[in-house]
Amino acid sequence: MFELHEALARDCVFVGDLPLCRLLLMNDSQYPWLILVPRRADLREQCDLSSDDQLLYLQESNICCGVLRSEFGAEKLNVAALGNMVPQLHIHHIARFSKDPAWPKPVWGQFPALAYTDDRLAALVAQLREVFAACVELKY
Amino acid sequence: MFELHEALARDCVFVGDLPLCRLLLMNDSQYPWLILVPRRADLREQCDLSSDDQLLYLQESNICCGVLRSEFGAEKLNVAALGNMVPQLHIHHIARFSKDPAWPKPVWGQFPALAYTDDRLAALVAQLREVFAACVELKY
Repeated sequence: MFELHEALARDCVFVGDLPLCRLLLMNDSQYPWLILVPRRADLREQCDLSSDDQLLYLQESNICCGVLRSEFGAEKLNVAALGNMVPQLHIHHIARFSKDPAWPKPVWGQFPALAYTDDRLAALVAQLREVFAACVELKY
Repeated sequence: MFELHEALARDCVFVGDLPLCRLLLMNDSQYPWLILVPRRADLREQCDLSSDDQLLYLQESNICCGVLRSEFGAEKLNVAALGNMVPQLHIHHIARFSKDPAWPKPVWGQFPALAYTDDRLAALVAQLREVFAACVELKY
């Protein structure tokens, strides 16, 4: 049974469930940062998704990229499945800017997360739910 | 017209052309590290590939992951499209090990590359050509 890894539950905010993935927002105000977690048990690598799930993942990843551009004006996208520390398969989708604190380095391990304010977080989650729900089935 | 970015040409070795991507081996003996570069001009993001090309990419990425496991015994795979410094779309496929120098951090920016010896490089490219050609069309 799928259960979200405790590190992802701690560091991220639940946005909603897409057909395949749980959509999370990383609680780090330094970068617009979405994470897709395929809701499949005991999965560590993207290539171990079934063929059907890979196609679903592709659609959901494309939507994340589109949203990071349309809603946040991403200059560059960083899309990465690393998982060296958190074994549950999760794929980072990060909007990058030439003025963001870690640019041009990858974001991981550069700076401690700066949590959003409660108000900003609530507004962002509402915004994300609205824009995702316009593209794809989203449950929350 | 597709032309490989000079930074990729400098840091990597040509293995062959798959149906969509140029397959490169990063010349860094610290990690088995393949790079896929879709042979499309002026492309910066994976989500901007056409639908057909996305499916081709998916197949070629899956093969890279399989090879990193079968030939190098990867304990973990890191698959990432970053491109903050090199704008041409290229997707890293890296075999990670709990004993590799950067573990568990991402590899980028951790340690300078340690080039393979000429003999080792030639043997590796031959090995990669053989195993890829058994799975997919490969031209070199």
